[in-house]
Amino acid sequence: MNGADRLCDTLLVNGVDVCFANPGTSEMHFVAALDRKPQMRCVLGLFEGVVTGAADGYARMADKPAATLLHCGPGMANALANMHNARRAWTPMLNVVGDHATYHLQHDAPLTSDIESLARPMSHYVHRIATPEDVGPAIGEAYAAAMSLPGVATVILPGDCAWGSVEPAEVTATPVPSFKAVAPETISEVAALLRKHGGRAALMMTGSSLREGPLETAARICAATGCKMYGQMSNGRIERGVGRVAIPKVFYPVDMALEQLKDIDLLVLVGAQIPVGFFAYPGKPGRLIHDGCIVATLGVMGDDLNGALAALAEETGATKVEPAFIARAQTETALPSGDLDADKVCTIVARLLPENAIICDESVSSGRVFYQQCHNAPQHDYLQLTGGAIGEGIPMCVGAAVACPDRKVIGMQADGSGMYTVQGLWTQARENLDIVTVIFANRTYAILHGEMRAVGVNDFGRNATLMLNLDEPALDWVSMARGMGVEAARATTAEEFTKLFKGALGRKGPFLIEAVI
Amino acid sequence: MNGADRLCDTLLVNGVDVCFANPGTSEMHFVAALDRKPQMRCVLGLFEGVVTGAADGYARMADKPAATLLHCGPGMANALANMHNARRAWTPMLNVVGDHATYHLQHDAPLTSDIESLARPMSHYVHRIATPEDVGPAIGEAYAAAMSLPGVATVILPGDCAWGSVEPAEVTATPVPSFKAVAPETISEVAALLRKHGGRAALMMTGSSLREGPLETAARICAATGCKMYGQMSNGRIERGVGRVAIPKVFYPVDMALEQLKDIDLLVLVGAQIPVGFFAYPGKPGRLIHDGCIVATLGVMGDDLNGALAALAEETGATKVEPAFIARAQTETALPSGDLDADKVCTIVARLLPENAIICDESVSSGRVFYQQCHNAPQHDYLQLTGGAIGEGIPMCVGAAVACPDRKVIGMQADGSGMYTVQGLWTQARENLDIVTVIFANRTYAILHGEMRAVGVNDFGRNATLMLNLDEPALDWVSMARGMGVEAARATTAEEFTKLFKGALGRKGPFLIEAVI
Repeated sequence: MNGADRLCDTLLVNGVDVCFANPGTSEMHFVAALDRKPQMRCVLGLFEGVVTGAADGYARMADKPAATLLHCGPGMANALANMHNARRAWTPMLNVVGDHATYHLQHDAPLTSDIESLARPMSHYVHRIATPEDVGPAIGEAYAAAMSLPGVATVILPGDCAWGSVEPAEVTATPVPSFKAVAPETISEVAALLRKHGGRAALMMTGSSLREGPLETAARICAATGCKMYGQMSNGRIERGVGRVAIPKVFYPVDMALEQLKDIDLLVLVGAQIPVGFFAYPGKPGRLIHDGCIVATLGVMGDDLNGALAALAEETGATKVEPAFIARAQTETALPSGDLDADKVCTIVARLLPENAIICDESVSSGRVFYQQCHNAPQHDYLQLTGGAIGEGIPMCVGAAVACPDRKVIGMQADGSGMYTVQGLWTQARENLDIVTVIFANRTYAILHGEMRAVGVNDFGRNATLMLNLDEPALDWVSMARGMGVEAARATTAEEFTKLFKGALGRKGPFLIEAVI
Repeated sequence: MNGADRLCDTLLVNGVDVCFANPGTSEMHFVAALDRKPQMRCVLGLFEGVVTGAADGYARMADKPAATLLHCGPGMANALANMHNARRAWTPMLNVVGDHATYHLQHDAPLTSDIESLARPMSHYVHRIATPEDVGPAIGEAYAAAMSLPGVATVILPGDCAWGSVEPAEVTATPVPSFKAVAPETISEVAALLRKHGGRAALMMTGSSLREGPLETAARICAATGCKMYGQMSNGRIERGVGRVAIPKVFYPVDMALEQLKDIDLLVLVGAQIPVGFFAYPGKPGRLIHDGCIVATLGVMGDDLNGALAALAEETGATKVEPAFIARAQTETALPSGDLDADKVCTIVARLLPENAIICDESVSSGRVFYQQCHNAPQHDYLQLTGGAIGEGIPMCVGAAVACPDRKVIGMQADGSGMYTVQGLWTQARENLDIVTVIFANRTYAILHGEMRAVGVNDFGRNATLMLNLDEPALDWVSMARGMGVEAARATTAEEFTKLFKGALGRKGPFLIEAVI
């Protein structure tokens, strides 16, 4: 057997049985080894941004990494933007980047580049395999690294380490270090602070603390101490909907976020960062809490956040109180009608959301009301763009649908960002994934119109107009989707959109709706 | 005025008057400044790979850099693959990467990343601007750096350096260092070696030495000394066709290249690298020349290669001999007919090539015969994928067409690589660029089928089949192109292809032909 076989065995023994891939010549032995492992599900992306975006969406839902197969430095470069999003979502991911044979690097062949330098900004673990025998331990270590923080681990696999022989050996699962327990003193200190600040305190949460159980625990703490709770502006996954507890997020617009947090004198971080503006604006503060706000850390990522919340609930007497659970919306009003706009699309999707859906939200400016609108929809998972690197939505749907084949995946997709990884539609078609993609076809980078006004430019000349609009020609999403094998249709009225959306929910497989707004 | 205005002024005074862009929030002041400069042509790409691929194509034809406008680390990450190709083509390029305001970086906002680490592998000049007053000198220095090697220069522009005020000042053109003269002793030594080795010597050329004048000089040296001349396997631009001199390239398949170069005992490098295999293969050598071959360097990139060739021609008495010029093909045979295949497509394009066309070749495996087939076509420029980072073809056509609006651009495009930056078709439509894109729709990564066989795998199982084929579903390029505003049609026979290609040549504006092979 060779190094590539060992690689596959080490992945499989650790439960990594999905590989999103875009291979090249230096990975042919890896492909040949995968071919000998039918238990590994290989999913082709026609661009590496699709590969890592899918791996991100997969792991957010599967709670374990997918492997990716990337080709040399440029192939990984194409994958970096969605590795960045995965890093910001604390997603476990295990990238295998093929490279030239060790002895070929000296020749500086055309595809040669400094893969380590490219990988490090978006990976918390980077390792270059040195020999075929190094493959097994390196992949095991990378798996543990991806699971334990969690985050992005990148392994560089030279061709000769893939094709070189290894001694047959039993491959065993790699132990993953447990999350670190938070010290009891920390729990007591935070509890004391919460008691002191009461209604002027808030929990700021992200990561695993946004799942149903810990969210309920946090809501009990809020009920017991009077504090508030928020999710970060961007999070990998939130479990929401009827019967769960509500979790507002920090607003994107700086002024709204400042208003939202202006009365908070104590901020308790639960894996989260101190909230800051997504961007700096002249004359506006970077931090979104006031200068006198005390910041306490219950735990950081890698800590046992859910255990810490449970301990904090004990300490604050919160186990005895009942939080408010979200009740089913009692809306009997008719669905929106008439000309379509972004808010109507959001309303219709929220109102018709099926039980147990997975929402992948890259609606950017068009969907700003959506998160609030669907909070009392049937139970669902809400996945969003975390790192601001647009082009994650279509592939994230791919990954979520691969991880959860029995659940409906709904992509809320801005048109500008959708174009970044539009190739992902093909993978949706090839794998016949159960995804409804809603394109908010406003034919502009709408967010940038707002940002231009924020910097004081209200009249756009020719150059600004050219750079901020996607019209001339308008993108025809129906044609593009059909060209990649995805059925699609266009809606220009709310009635048409409702009909198409209902139709898409009533069938299996990928469908795209271009909502002209 | 602000830093962004100074940036635009510094670009324009240096003759940089095209900006390929995909802006984000941190670049809004740059966009606003561009809006005040109608003399700057701004071209939007719907993905950053389009932006740098277009900048590469532009500069190969314009012999000066375009500016690019990229958004933060992830935006630049998306641009890296075609920066890699530009680096390998020795293309001047001036990237401006917007970043957070200097004082905002400390907050680690979601889009924050280590831009320098990402930029360095693909840029020979990287500079982070520190103040608004730094903008002018930094852009000037970057321009000089891009022109003098030539290569890729990347400048990081924090938001506050763009929006901060600068003192009004006259902006003057930045002096660009001349290419370094090659020492007379080097010329004499190389001349002596060429005389000694005669027919067993070869010039290995790239960069500016592949333009009409220096190629003719090199051909005279060959005629005088009996040596051969070759272009590297991959080059940024070659001036070819009737009335010029022929320049074979080093073959891609290792065995063919070894055969091609087996009798060469002296290799003279003219800006080129020693030829090596694009990849390593078990049991095959990395270098494509034999172990006893002497390697002499006439000049490296950054040297005055054309001056060195002229001096070498003097020294070898080559100015008095006449090289062989390419004669017009005397083919009276009919064009191919019947079912279409890749070779027929190449033959038809070569036979119908219009005068003064620009060929952008990313045909990968399908077009292997094309370079030889079109050597005696009417005069044309031949641009090819240089760094092996697929996804350059469609944007390279954009850039070449922007640089040369009066010339027909012909994209020879493999389907697999075409999907990488398929968004570039929209820019072709928006700018109404005179481009004919020929898609070799073989619906596989055909090159990888060959590479799999090269590693000894002849029977593909399910996983390999999934990863190496682009069928199920087949890509419908006509729909995709129309979805982005590019007129398109499909050919399944040679007659249909001929008719469509002739039709496309007879009109202006973008047209795509899906050649089903």
